[in-house]
Amino acid sequence: MRQVLILGGGGMVGQKLAHHLSARGLNGDGAIDVTLFDIGFPEGGAAGRRITGDITDAALLTRLLQAKPDVIFHLASVVSGEAEQDYAKGWRTNMTPFWHMMEELRRLSVGSGGSYRPRLVFTSSIAVFGGPYPAKIGDEFLSAPRTSYGAQKAVCELMLSDASRKGFVDGVSIRLPTICVRPGAPNKAASGFFSNIIREPLAGKAAVLPVADTVRHWHASPRAAVGFLTHAAGLDLDLLDGRRALTMPGLSCTVAEQIEALRRVAGEAAVRLIRHEPDPAIMAIVDGWPRDFDPQRALELGFRAEASFDEIVRIHIEDELGAV
Amino acid sequence: MRQVLILGGGGMVGQKLAHHLSARGLNGDGAIDVTLFDIGFPEGGAAGRRITGDITDAALLTRLLQAKPDVIFHLASVVSGEAEQDYAKGWRTNMTPFWHMMEELRRLSVGSGGSYRPRLVFTSSIAVFGGPYPAKIGDEFLSAPRTSYGAQKAVCELMLSDASRKGFVDGVSIRLPTICVRPGAPNKAASGFFSNIIREPLAGKAAVLPVADTVRHWHASPRAAVGFLTHAAGLDLDLLDGRRALTMPGLSCTVAEQIEALRRVAGEAAVRLIRHEPDPAIMAIVDGWPRDFDPQRALELGFRAEASFDEIVRIHIEDELGAV
Repeated sequence: MRQVLILGGGGMVGQKLAHHLSARGLNGDGAIDVTLFDIGFPEGGAAGRRITGDITDAALLTRLLQAKPDVIFHLASVVSGEAEQDYAKGWRTNMTPFWHMMEELRRLSVGSGGSYRPRLVFTSSIAVFGGPYPAKIGDEFLSAPRTSYGAQKAVCELMLSDASRKGFVDGVSIRLPTICVRPGAPNKAASGFFSNIIREPLAGKAAVLPVADTVRHWHASPRAAVGFLTHAAGLDLDLLDGRRALTMPGLSCTVAEQIEALRRVAGEAAVRLIRHEPDPAIMAIVDGWPRDFDPQRALELGFRAEASFDEIVRIHIEDELGAV
Repeated sequence: MRQVLILGGGGMVGQKLAHHLSARGLNGDGAIDVTLFDIGFPEGGAAGRRITGDITDAALLTRLLQAKPDVIFHLASVVSGEAEQDYAKGWRTNMTPFWHMMEELRRLSVGSGGSYRPRLVFTSSIAVFGGPYPAKIGDEFLSAPRTSYGAQKAVCELMLSDASRKGFVDGVSIRLPTICVRPGAPNKAASGFFSNIIREPLAGKAAVLPVADTVRHWHASPRAAVGFLTHAAGLDLDLLDGRRALTMPGLSCTVAEQIEALRRVAGEAAVRLIRHEPDPAIMAIVDGWPRDFDPQRALELGFRAEASFDEIVRIHIEDELGAV
């Protein structure tokens, strides 16, 4: 039975991935045994062995890896805003355990005479990029992050590529778009409004739009994110020819286009629940974010995101609001 | 008196930098006090306080930094070939102490209420790049290294940029071309022949050329390298607008062009000392190396390399063979 370890299995994407795995397995590869590791888990939630702990606990992380999982999904991370507010905590959480994991996988590889070489799928982010940007960011554009979170993700990408090149692990970094529509309560992340302005009106609640509706950004649904992860777990990574960090496909659209999609799906009454309250602090942050990509390599490798924001809204309704 | 610390001050470039500083100071900024740190030093050698030790000794590195140098040149590194042969040693030497230094500089910055913010010039390398390449590598081309050494340099660049963005240090990473003509005995580095085929014939000795003379590569003299370092130490880094890794200028030329320059400067007898002995292993390595760059940003910021290989040969004769 194939062992799957999800680091960060208690988070939104980790839980959706675990749900998917328990319902459908992993790429039709037969029975799997799933272990979820996180600092905390939602009540109820997805099936799988739950281990609660802190990823900065090196001894615990070592024990998790010594079980020699066949597939590791690494989603654990201090989020962007927190990594920016607390530099030391961000690096200590987002980089140090990752390096510890590379070292442990090397030891396990050497100890097994090279026979243990797990697949590792690392969730990186478009935060590895920093402006100024070209109109569309191509697959050969530099990583010059303007946040600590982005720098930490870029560092982990490099570590994973090198350990993979050496054969200690078979890794790939997938750079996720902003995930939209995020379920759950509105959060204070600077990017929260992209989801809030859809999710809240669909639930009959008011939402605040803090930026101009001309703002363009790069989105994919939570369902697409799970698709990226499982596709990456099954891919022949030799096809990557050593460039093991991939910008995932997404949908580039403006806030106005998001709102038009909401109007088409849920009507004018929903749209009227969005209140425009410009917030200069959020506007300044969002101004530094990438707007559009040309993720040719990921598309050629079969990764797929949504083709319209209408589709993203409908997926939210299907997956979160129980509609069919 | 300004305090200057050279990590890796015993190496070839470190010694040339120290010689330059003791003869000319640093950008005319007044008296300086130079400390050289390295695992070993050449006999005689450049002036400066010498401290012998291993950069992986965290307590020692902390003590060096607690003296609060105004300018730190970081040249210490396990070289490319060794980092490739010994993965663990490479990361332990080229990455771990660098991160330790970032942490120590943060603590010193916080402890001083933000008043201590040294200039740090980090010698990165064109090894941060990996093929396939465009005809000329521009300033926005991705870092996708194909060696552990390159990955370690790219990781340090990201750490330095982020710590600088946070204001704990005022850092810049300068990506050196292959330094040519390296003085001293022929070494076994895969890149050694670029220097050997000039230096040895000029000394009346035979040299081996292991690759075709059509091989194109990116060069700068040791004198240019010292110029990059001192120029970087004096630059207003706000001009970098957050992109703190700079590809240095260099000269792109083929081995045939190198040999023609040797012929013009030293005559046919010198050229006849070069023996062509193809080495498939070296050919394969060199085939993955970058050939040409368009280092626009560094040129705009005033960094300068040689304009011809004749100039590189003449500099070797002037600086190493005592000619005027």
